Amino acid sequence: MATLGDIGVAAGINLLSAFVFLLAFAILRLQPFNDRVYFPKWYLKGLRSSPSRSGTFVKKFVNLDFRSYLRFLNWMPEALKMPELELIDHAGLDSAVYLRIYLIGLKIFVPITFLAWAVLVPVNYTNKTLELQLKNVTSSDIDKLSISNVPDGSDRFWTHIVMAYAFTFWTCYVLLKEYEKVANMRLQFLVSEKRRPDQFTVLVRNVPPDSDESVSETVEHFFLVNHPDTYLTHQVVCNANKLAKLVKKRKSKQNWLDYYQLKYSRNNAKRPLMKTGFLGLWGKKVDAIDHHITEIKKLSDEIAEERERVLKDPKSIMPAAFVSFKSRWGAAVCAQTQQSRNPTLWLTDWAPEPRDVYWQNLSIPYVSIAVRRLIMAVAFFFLTFFFIIPIASVQALATIEGLEKAAPFLKALIEIPFIKSVIQGFLPGIVLKLFLIFLPTILMIMSKFEGFTSISSLERRSATRYYLFNLVNVFLGSVIAGSALDQLNTFLKQSANEIPKTIGVAVPMRATFFITYIMVDGWAGIAAEILMLKPLIIYHLKNTFLVKTEKDREEAMNPGSLSFNVGEPRIQLYFLLGMVYATVTPVLLPFIVVFFGLAYVVFRHQIINVYNQEYESAAAFWPDVHGRIIIALLVSHVALIGLLSTKHLAQAAPLLITLAVLTIWFYRFCKARYEPAFVRYPLQEAVMKDTLERARDSNFNLKPYLQNAYIHPVFKEEDDDEEEEVVKLENESVLVPTKRQSRRNTPVPSKMSGASSQSLPEAVPEHSVP
Amino acid sequence: MATLGDIGVAAGINLLSAFVFLLAFAILRLQPFNDRVYFPKWYLKGLRSSPSRSGTFVKKFVNLDFRSYLRFLNWMPEALKMPELELIDHAGLDSAVYLRIYLIGLKIFVPITFLAWAVLVPVNYTNKTLELQLKNVTSSDIDKLSISNVPDGSDRFWTHIVMAYAFTFWTCYVLLKEYEKVANMRLQFLVSEKRRPDQFTVLVRNVPPDSDESVSETVEHFFLVNHPDTYLTHQVVCNANKLAKLVKKRKSKQNWLDYYQLKYSRNNAKRPLMKTGFLGLWGKKVDAIDHHITEIKKLSDEIAEERERVLKDPKSIMPAAFVSFKSRWGAAVCAQTQQSRNPTLWLTDWAPEPRDVYWQNLSIPYVSIAVRRLIMAVAFFFLTFFFIIPIASVQALATIEGLEKAAPFLKALIEIPFIKSVIQGFLPGIVLKLFLIFLPTILMIMSKFEGFTSISSLERRSATRYYLFNLVNVFLGSVIAGSALDQLNTFLKQSANEIPKTIGVAVPMRATFFITYIMVDGWAGIAAEILMLKPLIIYHLKNTFLVKTEKDREEAMNPGSLSFNVGEPRIQLYFLLGMVYATVTPVLLPFIVVFFGLAYVVFRHQIINVYNQEYESAAAFWPDVHGRIIIALLVSHVALIGLLSTKHLAQAAPLLITLAVLTIWFYRFCKARYEPAFVRYPLQEAVMKDTLERARDSNFNLKPYLQNAYIHPVFKEEDDDEEEEVVKLENESVLVPTKRQSRRNTPVPSKMSGASSQSLPEAVPEHSVP
Repeated sequence: MATLGDIGVAAGINLLSAFVFLLAFAILRLQPFNDRVYFPKWYLKGLRSSPSRSGTFVKKFVNLDFRSYLRFLNWMPEALKMPELELIDHAGLDSAVYLRIYLIGLKIFVPITFLAWAVLVPVNYTNKTLELQLKNVTSSDIDKLSISNVPDGSDRFWTHIVMAYAFTFWTCYVLLKEYEKVANMRLQFLVSEKRRPDQFTVLVRNVPPDSDESVSETVEHFFLVNHPDTYLTHQVVCNANKLAKLVKKRKSKQNWLDYYQLKYSRNNAKRPLMKTGFLGLWGKKVDAIDHHITEIKKLSDEIAEERERVLKDPKSIMPAAFVSFKSRWGAAVCAQTQQSRNPTLWLTDWAPEPRDVYWQNLSIPYVSIAVRRLIMAVAFFFLTFFFIIPIASVQALATIEGLEKAAPFLKALIEIPFIKSVIQGFLPGIVLKLFLIFLPTILMIMSKFEGFTSISSLERRSATRYYLFNLVNVFLGSVIAGSALDQLNTFLKQSANEIPKTIGVAVPMRATFFITYIMVDGWAGIAAEILMLKPLIIYHLKNTFLVKTEKDREEAMNPGSLSFNVGEPRIQLYFLLGMVYATVTPVLLPFIVVFFGLAYVVFRHQIINVYNQEYESAAAFWPDVHGRIIIALLVSHVALIGLLSTKHLAQAAPLLITLAVLTIWFYRFCKARYEPAFVRYPLQEAVMKDTLERARDSNFNLKPYLQNAYIHPVFKEEDDDEEEEVVKLENESVLVPTKRQSRRNTPVPSKMSGASSQSLPEAVPEHSVP
Repeated sequence: MATLGDIGVAAGINLLSAFVFLLAFAILRLQPFNDRVYFPKWYLKGLRSSPSRSGTFVKKFVNLDFRSYLRFLNWMPEALKMPELELIDHAGLDSAVYLRIYLIGLKIFVPITFLAWAVLVPVNYTNKTLELQLKNVTSSDIDKLSISNVPDGSDRFWTHIVMAYAFTFWTCYVLLKEYEKVANMRLQFLVSEKRRPDQFTVLVRNVPPDSDESVSETVEHFFLVNHPDTYLTHQVVCNANKLAKLVKKRKSKQNWLDYYQLKYSRNNAKRPLMKTGFLGLWGKKVDAIDHHITEIKKLSDEIAEERERVLKDPKSIMPAAFVSFKSRWGAAVCAQTQQSRNPTLWLTDWAPEPRDVYWQNLSIPYVSIAVRRLIMAVAFFFLTFFFIIPIASVQALATIEGLEKAAPFLKALIEIPFIKSVIQGFLPGIVLKLFLIFLPTILMIMSKFEGFTSISSLERRSATRYYLFNLVNVFLGSVIAGSALDQLNTFLKQSANEIPKTIGVAVPMRATFFITYIMVDGWAGIAAEILMLKPLIIYHLKNTFLVKTEKDREEAMNPGSLSFNVGEPRIQLYFLLGMVYATVTPVLLPFIVVFFGLAYVVFRHQIINVYNQEYESAAAFWPDVHGRIIIALLVSHVALIGLLSTKHLAQAAPLLITLAVLTIWFYRFCKARYEPAFVRYPLQEAVMKDTLERARDSNFNLKPYLQNAYIHPVFKEEDDDEEEEVVKLENESVLVPTKRQSRRNTPVPSKMSGASSQSLPEAVPEHSVP
């Protein structure tokens, strides 16, 4: 058991490393040549341009204004300054609501921390159980503050039960308010938004095959009959997966060509050569530039051919379509109703944003999806509980003996003492770490296999799985100190009322471990996030070897995005720890509060200056966030029931079970009350929006606006190349680069979402909406 | 352990009692004076009239045609003769589909029985385990045929696993086919049906209060705005609960008045007297006829006053309304979509049939419903697991000592040996039996408290609860031979993999008990059902004391109805027993098959000749039936896993767990594939029906047709009294009473469902549907 002193030292080290990261960030961000790494969002919005246009050569790369270094923590208040409404406008609702997860952490845990320190810490500290029990051992200070210090059967435990009620009620109150707020924000966002194609469009899947009609005709006839007053137009979905692959391949070849051409232009004496074999390691030597030019030409031909084929071949038309309606009301009605007798045909659903569509999955038939879900559920079960088996076998191979057996020729090398110790010390850990790094990717692939049709739903599903994995393997794994497989065994062999005891007894003992975990993963990890080391390195590499034009430089930026599927489950772990330890070891709470505070500031900065969201789901993830905080509450109740039953206070169990039942009821109440706002679109809202828009802008012709909104991005990209010039000119005439601080924070229509509507001509309507 | 001989004797006794019941029924049904008890359905449809019109006095009461007694089992083939389509027309889809539950039992268990006897019985019988183990004891013949006879760790158990797979797959196949069939029948029924008000109507609840407008105005404005093209009319719901009570009270007084008047007319010498106190036991003696006449007059005044109040007072208008649309499409859209931002306001749902509405619950607000559900869930938990506590305390009171203590004045009476033995032998059992008889009523009251708005959903909810109660207290209670409370204790204290063992070991030992149970409850119980002893007695009592006119006689008939909430859970118990014992003790299967066969014939007869369904939910209960058979499958898997793990064949567990996972997946698949047909109304169907009807009968004016469809039955009843004459005349002109057998089976539009549409004038339409 660590003493308060040990924890203090660990806290010091982690605070220091966090401070170093923040300092490094503060210095790096002021250097002009890093500007595109730390402020890509503003570049993408066209509100900031490369600093290379003015000033001396040195100034282009290094900031020599020493006054700016003195205010190196300035970014923090700056990040907090932007009001929420502006933030929504600037970065989208998803990002703004994502920040509220940290905020809700603060809202929940700051009062709980104060209450716990005011009530529970004195109650725990004024006992002498541990002193009596452990006369020989120096008792840990932290344990003195925890529930372990209260003697068995003491009436003081009623304080803990009352506090458990207080904490649960407070959390539920905050959750309720927040759910209401987010639901309103979502509806407000949907109302206040500009016209967007997905408001009028429904994704129809599993169109039944018809021997006499093409898919397009079947769709048109069906909707003309069943939605006669509101149907407007539709676009069938093409299977352009192969085409997309070819285009991607050509792009990579083009990058290499650029690289070699740049190399040649710098050193005209020698034409660059390359080998044609695997990764350029072996094979025939050829002239790299010529080789790539011919390759690209070949690919271009292939692409043209494939493009032709996709557009003509009826086999490449998938039984799915995006159907657009004359009004939001029509789309809302179609999305929420069942169309056909057979509920697995003509499946209608709100169309995701065009950016959000996951095109590869649009053609999977219903039965196949049902089977895929089963397979993935079983696979995930095995992944969670048995992942340790392959890892362990690889680890066995990664020992000295294993390696010598597998690759005898390496024997001489391995026997060197230094290498030997490295292998023994690091390799097994690295294998596990590698697995954990790839886990989100594995989970994402699993979700893709399940057939979700939008990127946002893929990420939500992956997040759920990642959370469950963390709950079982990180939380329970650390508490019960065994692999998930051992746990499964334990739980199967234990009786139902032994399980909470096992957890409850172990929880207070692992407090110091989790405090260290919070500091390393939470404090230092978050501080490292803001440094953006990987994008920084990659940007400078690309900038050196590939960039020729301003456009290339834009492409070299990698702002990244929030990646909900990795980030949110990690936050949830802190909610879980905070809830479980709130009544047991209140000492842990301040560490959680610091985490939430720091993370809030850091991510607010990142969202304002760096991340570029790939899609907008209008906070569709909030029900998941809400549900997982409820799970944290329930786990805390189970742990407390177990703990108190070992403390000879079994009569507490009914009280805490009541609390758990009330919590579950609260969850169900919230689900019925607020979840529909995230799943359905109320007709009242749709009518309101329709009426407003009709009054404001009655001549707008929807049909051409919606006609091409949902074409596969491969086709769009090629069109973009031609249209881009026009768009750019328009944008440039609107936007004047400015250095004024206030201007930097002022919202301007985002280039991404505004482009398509701006570039379309406003024609005379063919049909007016009745 | 009973031998085959014992079982044979028990079977003989039960078969004999079943035969006696059937014989009594066969004789009683032929007597003309019982005609209205055994053929009320035909009287209600107007296809049969009292046999008193012709023939001699004796013939009116006793059937003297001895030939008819010779064919006393004739009703059986007769009951089976009516084809299903005619049955649907005659008794409604609910009844026809209810019969399919018995049919599905036959479809599942007949092949399983053959397979089990062909494969499992020989495999079990050709072992000698029991003979070796029990050399002293005479081993039971039944156990020799069961899985207990196979030695531990034998490879023969693989036969049982393969059979478990075969039985599960066969059951799932039958279930799938049946679900498809029933879903199609439901849709077919909805399509082929005549115009019915509920097809156009949506029940709107939780209309938000508006300070400026009445509920009626708010509803009208809301739907004119949000469903501008399809909204037609609406009816607000009045709180007429008090009025209904008064009317009911008056009716009962009227009955008494009739009784006394009849008494007086038979014996003019003495005017009947009565006491005014409780149940007429004490109080002032008054003239009964005068007393009732004044009472009725007083009530009539009160009713008129209350009626006035309900119609005028805005407080008696509830925030709910039945909103009707111009087309089925409009109603389908409104029922399936969310109307308002706040999903707890403007709740829309398909309106139940007018007969099916449960008026008392229409005004409960959303939050109150959420709280009521919680309370009832907790109450049901305690009812299931702790019901034995109050019963036991009452039983303790019902012993000799308890009674003497509670009521010392009874001491002398109790000490009489005969009464003493009766009390000791029967009273404790009777207390439990009384509780079990009232259980469905208790569950129904609980469902009503939860706020369901239709009688059919009330019955479905009660059925679910009754099933769970039976599963825990009858099945598990008999298997583990302890009260549910003991079980709860056992399960909490046992580890997760001990629980299946506990069940698995006990299951084969209880086989003979369940065989007896099936014979008593299933065979003899079903045969007693057809005798209808209670309605028979009540009818003759009423006929003697109350009936003056033909109309009174009609009211004295009590055909009853299927009462899904009691019947279905009882059938499900047989599915459960069949599934669990199919692999373990195949001897039990023929008893199950006989039950399903007998019950099918009996209930088919009852549905054709007796029951008069109170409502039509178009087989909305099928998903519940399907789900519970799946539960039976899963319980059988758990029991087999437990059993085999005690037989040293633990490696079977993964195989059977796989089977259980597949079964769960099958359930989810079916749920997604077929359940929507029972919850939603596809737009395609609605459009088809609308178009057809518009083409066929374009001048029909919907508005007056729907205007008064959903008024509270109290108002309707009073109107009926005035209108009835007209309806009767119309009906009589159509229907000529006939004695021809074929005519008796020919469907004719039911009086109940056809009346309202026939009695309404076909006016010129005000609006034509666009």
